[in-house]
Amino acid sequence: MPSDLDNLRVVLVAARNPLNIGAAARAMSNFGVRRLRVVNPYEVAFQEARSAVGASGLLAKAEQFENLADAVADCSLVVGTTAAGRRELQHRLRRLDEGGREIKRQLKAGRVALLFGSERFGLSNREMSHCHWMMRIPTREEHGSMNLGQAVAVCLYELVRGRKTAPAKAAPRKKKSTRAKSGETERLTEVLLEVLRASGFVNSRAVAAEEKLRRLVRRMELNGNDAEVLLGMLRQIAWKLGANEKIEK
Amino acid sequence: MPSDLDNLRVVLVAARNPLNIGAAARAMSNFGVRRLRVVNPYEVAFQEARSAVGASGLLAKAEQFENLADAVADCSLVVGTTAAGRRELQHRLRRLDEGGREIKRQLKAGRVALLFGSERFGLSNREMSHCHWMMRIPTREEHGSMNLGQAVAVCLYELVRGRKTAPAKAAPRKKKSTRAKSGETERLTEVLLEVLRASGFVNSRAVAAEEKLRRLVRRMELNGNDAEVLLGMLRQIAWKLGANEKIEK
Repeated sequence: MPSDLDNLRVVLVAARNPLNIGAAARAMSNFGVRRLRVVNPYEVAFQEARSAVGASGLLAKAEQFENLADAVADCSLVVGTTAAGRRELQHRLRRLDEGGREIKRQLKAGRVALLFGSERFGLSNREMSHCHWMMRIPTREEHGSMNLGQAVAVCLYELVRGRKTAPAKAAPRKKKSTRAKSGETERLTEVLLEVLRASGFVNSRAVAAEEKLRRLVRRMELNGNDAEVLLGMLRQIAWKLGANEKIEK
Repeated sequence: MPSDLDNLRVVLVAARNPLNIGAAARAMSNFGVRRLRVVNPYEVAFQEARSAVGASGLLAKAEQFENLADAVADCSLVVGTTAAGRRELQHRLRRLDEGGREIKRQLKAGRVALLFGSERFGLSNREMSHCHWMMRIPTREEHGSMNLGQAVAVCLYELVRGRKTAPAKAAPRKKKSTRAKSGETERLTEVLLEVLRASGFVNSRAVAAEEKLRRLVRRMELNGNDAEVLLGMLRQIAWKLGANEKIEK
């Protein structure tokens, strides 16, 4: 199997059903995707899935995180899956086939996180605010919500389909502007927020502002260098404004 | 939904697990395929699946057959799914993407049966003998066998992917993310420069800094809204920093 799939992280957020966690792991194994991350799972479910008969080594090696920011910190592209229509979303929404193409391109350059929300509620707005864009499996509008294990299987299939039939015919070498990792982007968001609070642009208690800001920063799709430069600028501004001392200059 | 999917019959042969039968039905509903046939199911499983909470009308209407010949009698194309490699097969084997194209063609003309074997053994040689050809989901050779419900989901996805009508009208409409005009981008650059000077990040005589900054801002490829929001932020910051009065707040 081509190694760029090793750059993919399947991230299950707040999954509650051990059967679904197991099914996601099985589909990953079927399609040669090895890195599973779980964020804040229903603990009993996660342990059950791990100890189930036939559970894969993949599940034993799954990484567990307490919050989403940490789980995607080393990924330069974060894509959320959703059953929702465009109207309810703040994000750019891509269909699976189009989004899959973009993910495959990014996998050549760096780590990509593919997020699946909880069985009941999907991804929350707060969770979505960590995403660069959202992706939708083309299900019927009347019954859009898929079973978690099936959704994982379908998304991974899209990423491997056509692999052998379309061999390495020198993919259009895209300019190697390595994208900023989520950890950098998140730091940038935090310092920007501090600056905006210190300047009076944002009320310090507003939570919506934080999510809006997080989305705005992700839309810039910064490369690593630019993110670093901007962070330096913001830290200087924060210092000049006498913002919160937790920001080291 | 286009009516040629109504020509598709999903046929589960000797399925043993009610959860899998339910999962197959759910995937069918997700992708707008309505006709389920079960051949010689483990009776208890079928009844359980039918009476499960949330079972679809699709399951209630599923047709039950005692043998495969009857179940596919009215279909002009019968395709079996398999995890096996070509060597073990007597049949022509097509990959899902190639086979899916052929199935879509045939659906315009008549009924097509898509067969899934039992969870344990897949389709027997005898059952395969009813098939025109076999189809394989491109899984890893080392772990080819998929969960039944996931296999159904992936196959049906391949049949609906790329359909323009699938996600209905909401999706194709591209969000009007009109890119920021150059004038806006330039204003943003100017105010950012003022802020950086006022904060001491940039020496006021440095010309190189201005050009670097201009390029950096362009690389963000901001849309018009985001540019406006950022401009508002920067003006507030500039005002707070007591920057050059030529910047109107």
